[in-house]
Amino acid sequence: MTSSATYHGDGHGDSDSEPEVTAAGQAMHALARRLWPINRSITGPGLRQTLHALSEGLPGLSMIEIPSGTHVLDWRVPPEWRVREAWLQGPDGSRVLDFAHSNLHLLGYSMGVDQSLSLAELQAHLHSLPEQPDAIPYVTSYYQKRWGFCLSHRLRQSLPEGQYRAFIDAEHVPGSLSLAELLIPGQSQEEIFLSTYCCHPSMANNELSGPCLLNQLGQWLLALPTRRYSYRLVFLPEMIGSIAYLSLRLKQLQQRVIAGFNLSCVGDERAYSFLPSRAGNTLADRVALHALAHTAPDFQRYHWRDRGSDESNYCAPGVDLPIASVMRSKYGTYPEYHTSLDDLERVVTAQGLAQSYRLYQRMLTALERNVRPRCLVLGEPQLGRRGLYPSLSQKGSTRDVRQLLDLLSYSDGKLDLIAIAQACACPIWELYPWLDRCRQEQLLACD
Amino acid sequence: MTSSATYHGDGHGDSDSEPEVTAAGQAMHALARRLWPINRSITGPGLRQTLHALSEGLPGLSMIEIPSGTHVLDWRVPPEWRVREAWLQGPDGSRVLDFAHSNLHLLGYSMGVDQSLSLAELQAHLHSLPEQPDAIPYVTSYYQKRWGFCLSHRLRQSLPEGQYRAFIDAEHVPGSLSLAELLIPGQSQEEIFLSTYCCHPSMANNELSGPCLLNQLGQWLLALPTRRYSYRLVFLPEMIGSIAYLSLRLKQLQQRVIAGFNLSCVGDERAYSFLPSRAGNTLADRVALHALAHTAPDFQRYHWRDRGSDESNYCAPGVDLPIASVMRSKYGTYPEYHTSLDDLERVVTAQGLAQSYRLYQRMLTALERNVRPRCLVLGEPQLGRRGLYPSLSQKGSTRDVRQLLDLLSYSDGKLDLIAIAQACACPIWELYPWLDRCRQEQLLACD
Amino acid sequence: MTSSATYHGDGHGDSDSEPEVTAAGQAMHALARRLWPINRSITGPGLRQTLHALSEGLPGLSMIEIPSGTHVLDWRVPPEWRVREAWLQGPDGSRVLDFAHSNLHLLGYSMGVDQSLSLAELQAHLHSLPEQPDAIPYVTSYYQKRWGFCLSHRLRQSLPEGQYRAFIDAEHVPGSLSLAELLIPGQSQEEIFLSTYCCHPSMANNELSGPCLLNQLGQWLLALPTRRYSYRLVFLPEMIGSIAYLSLRLKQLQQRVIAGFNLSCVGDERAYSFLPSRAGNTLADRVALHALAHTAPDFQRYHWRDRGSDESNYCAPGVDLPIASVMRSKYGTYPEYHTSLDDLERVVTAQGLAQSYRLYQRMLTALERNVRPRCLVLGEPQLGRRGLYPSLSQKGSTRDVRQLLDLLSYSDGKLDLIAIAQACACPIWELYPWLDRCRQEQLLACD
Repeated sequence: MTSSATYHGDGHGDSDSEPEVTAAGQAMHALARRLWPINRSITGPGLRQTLHALSEGLPGLSMIEIPSGTHVLDWRVPPEWRVREAWLQGPDGSRVLDFAHSNLHLLGYSMGVDQSLSLAELQAHLHSLPEQPDAIPYVTSYYQKRWGFCLSHRLRQSLPEGQYRAFIDAEHVPGSLSLAELLIPGQSQEEIFLSTYCCHPSMANNELSGPCLLNQLGQWLLALPTRRYSYRLVFLPEMIGSIAYLSLRLKQLQQRVIAGFNLSCVGDERAYSFLPSRAGNTLADRVALHALAHTAPDFQRYHWRDRGSDESNYCAPGVDLPIASVMRSKYGTYPEYHTSLDDLERVVTAQGLAQSYRLYQRMLTALERNVRPRCLVLGEPQLGRRGLYPSLSQKGSTRDVRQLLDLLSYSDGKLDLIAIAQACACPIWELYPWLDRCRQEQLLACD
Repeated sequence: MTSSATYHGDGHGDSDSEPEVTAAGQAMHALARRLWPINRSITGPGLRQTLHALSEGLPGLSMIEIPSGTHVLDWRVPPEWRVREAWLQGPDGSRVLDFAHSNLHLLGYSMGVDQSLSLAELQAHLHSLPEQPDAIPYVTSYYQKRWGFCLSHRLRQSLPEGQYRAFIDAEHVPGSLSLAELLIPGQSQEEIFLSTYCCHPSMANNELSGPCLLNQLGQWLLALPTRRYSYRLVFLPEMIGSIAYLSLRLKQLQQRVIAGFNLSCVGDERAYSFLPSRAGNTLADRVALHALAHTAPDFQRYHWRDRGSDESNYCAPGVDLPIASVMRSKYGTYPEYHTSLDDLERVVTAQGLAQSYRLYQRMLTALERNVRPRCLVLGEPQLGRRGLYPSLSQKGSTRDVRQLLDLLSYSDGKLDLIAIAQACACPIWELYPWLDRCRQEQLLACD
Repeated sequence: MTSSATYHGDGHGDSDSEPEVTAAGQAMHALARRLWPINRSITGPGLRQTLHALSEGLPGLSMIEIPSGTHVLDWRVPPEWRVREAWLQGPDGSRVLDFAHSNLHLLGYSMGVDQSLSLAELQAHLHSLPEQPDAIPYVTSYYQKRWGFCLSHRLRQSLPEGQYRAFIDAEHVPGSLSLAELLIPGQSQEEIFLSTYCCHPSMANNELSGPCLLNQLGQWLLALPTRRYSYRLVFLPEMIGSIAYLSLRLKQLQQRVIAGFNLSCVGDERAYSFLPSRAGNTLADRVALHALAHTAPDFQRYHWRDRGSDESNYCAPGVDLPIASVMRSKYGTYPEYHTSLDDLERVVTAQGLAQSYRLYQRMLTALERNVRPRCLVLGEPQLGRRGLYPSLSQKGSTRDVRQLLDLLSYSDGKLDLIAIAQACACPIWELYPWLDRCRQEQLLACD
């Protein structure tokens, strides 16, 4: 195959160990380590601090604040949660656990308290996982007022009888819900929509991996010399954030978005996962399934029923955005999920992030290049005089030009390049050089 | 799951041993025993007597008589058959067999005869089954004049040489073909059509089970406080009866019937069977396949080619009614079929009838409840403030509300509830309480 | 089954050993033997001689000559190739190989040469197959000027060092490209298109089998008393020939052709092969798949990607003719392909040709008989009074009339007979007698 054509940011190679990809993996992992200790929740200073940190690499990322109490679709924005300090003191006066050591120790959206109570009384406010005795579970109570601590079951079982002091200096105050948005313009007003969520405290795959990957993809997109489509990137708190964002942007999204992804659980090195849009056959589904089939054919395919994140809103009836999810180990399915074990050492790695970055580049590049080529000659073109066909015809001599012949044969002006690649049973990225060459040779037009 | 909603005649539970169902099974079996000895055929006093017996539980069931010789579609109504007496006398003067002991002994629609003849001459008029030597076969000759007796092969082989006297006091006279019809009105003029046939003499699964089940279902339908659809029940002789009925009602049926079933072979306890409509994808097919998959997933699925009853007429080209068949052991497939072995002891039981009753209730209820719900809010609704969602979010906490979330997510105003239940991978009856609750909460509308 | 109907040239029987078929196989094999020694190429006297030989059995076959240099779609007709003599002389003065012994010895479209050269210099002009050391390969260089010889690898390895004389008396001169066309008129102007290619020198399956089969089919078609469709038969050089033919006839073909086949590799006795049209669901595909499934259910099903002959042009985007390929061992897949081993003894047999003839007769007959029957009565017709139904009804008595009942039931005026046969799960040819009988009985109309 000979081709002088190149494509900006094409990034199609066979290896995830390209220097650019490796460097991206390390940058994402470093960013995740930096964001790790921040106490994020669906509102509050930790979320805000995280969004600002993400904005450093993404000039133009703009903050949106939606006041507490605002009606957003069927929901209301909750009051802002602020925590200053939280610990549990044992009968002997020592601190049994401290929010300063792990923000998972505090029940998400916990009320403040300062109370002395017996171990028996305390139990109703403790959360642990008997089947994972070393893990601190991640538990929240956003919409009902509670206070509580989360801790390893091993620690819980070692607690002696006696009087404990529960101290939580936290409050729920009028404030706002924070989210951040970046629109990267392209030649078309049609948009690719990329959403991720930043409301989880110190956990890695679910969920520092999504924001870090989206940050890296944003930098890559900004650096491209040209873009066919516009890109809309949003960082928000899960569920209430996407509800709030839809209440602001619904019509615009419905008019412009041709495909999109909810980035979540993209940092470990285990199997890839795919969760379709509600419709199941949108452009997002098609490009994701194609890229996965040719990158990780053993990926795990989930049903719409297995959803559990912002796609529930983006694909809800009447919203109907074309949003799919391409993940590594899906939320809810891996043992470390929603516990302190979901960390940046054993679960999320630079390599895992780099591989996801690579896959998303492939998908976005495929969308950029997804034209509907139309053959400009009738019958099979004479490739020989264009130097594209072996001049000596013998057994097997045309093997190397099969892809070119198939591309030409399927270029009926109706099939898009993803469909053609499916018909050719090859990755779409193997067709780019052929397509470029055929356009040069006036064999194909892409209206 | 908490739901204050109830549905009249919903009848969705997990057990076939509910008292109402058990009682229905016993009532059906008792009715079958009462109808057993009557000599039914496609015309005549036995058919008429059967229809009158069935009308006792179904006030409003009206008799229709179509005179012999009437042209009905491609057919003509045959003369009426009346039998007074029939027996075969052996060489020693004793009765070898007597119609009074089993009406199967007489060839259906046999001519009258009083003739002395040798065993060799007699053989041409005898019918038996060498491979089922203890069974009296059911044989008819409606449209060609013959006389004959049916008997067990064992008895036939034991017949001694000598002179026999064949005596059949039967005649074919101008009369009429009888059928019975009941229209149970509902809120809509759209109809569910339920047809069964009453032309078989003393056999149980094929066919006393169908008329007895339809009788019971009719009583249940009449007792419902309201019905969304109208129900049309017909009891007729097979083949010529449905032809005659179509000749009377074709246009009306085509305008009104949205789904229907031919009730046949519904009384034994063996595997369930499904035979589709000719089109294969009508509402009747869809509701039957859904109910079967969630009631008896190992049911036997037949092809349209395997048909053999009135659906041949109801689904014929140009008639095209949406009629499917849900059976137990299908006609033609079980060993006792069309013999004296198809009885009310070993084949058809109260339990078998009760299970079929239960399944038909499920199907009819599913049709009654088959709305197209439409979600009234954009994005996923906030279920928590409606008490429908756990306020404490931890690993696995939303498992119990998956059905509710799925119902809401699929309620796009286009899918009907059967399709939604298929998408939710659950029985439609598990969605009724959720649907009722969502309507109360103004989350769903069902236009 | 009783039927007085017969159909001209129906040829549906269960055996390939019918005398007519056996005789056809022997005639085809004899024709192939006669054509074997001719030096065919994509132009030139050998091609012309072959076309004239084929015309002997096909009165009306008309020759078309397209001058060298003519622009045809994306191609130009090449100069004509004429060979008088070609041989290679060894160091000892004897002839190492001679075109007179096998025309495969000469590189197809070789330039002329008369040159003395060492063995080392000669090697660049020799072609052999190390993995098939006894085979002379078939190699061509149509569009780049070369000279060369092809020989068995065994012979090549035995060549001694020394001076060789390469002598090729060949020239490329302005002339024309030859093809032949026969239009056999039918009642309709709609056409069945049958194309084959005659450009291969002495090889049997690929490709003397195609021209010989098409010649035989043409004789059969001409002998039919009536034909529903018109038939267009073309014999041409592969690739450039179909390109040239399309440049002459494209609009006409697009307006008239309802189905067609590219006849190639139809002479051996190995598995049948099917290669679809590009669209994949044309009438040609449907009839081929049906006939294959009921003739050789273990046939090999290929993908459009596996194409390699004139269908590339006939089905190209913008051409879009409904052309499929039904073959025996497909080109490129059997060991003897494109070598001297593809011969008329071990590969192509009279029996293999006869079986293919039989199958094509079945497909063409199925197209002729592919009506859309419409049942003229409502409900199932009364077959008994027409002598089509057993008058005695007992267990299993209707088994023999299932096909008739199914034919009637599926005759809705929308399905064609191929689709009905598929629904009936029987070969279409088993329905012809039933169809004829039903038309006689006024039960079916075929508008």
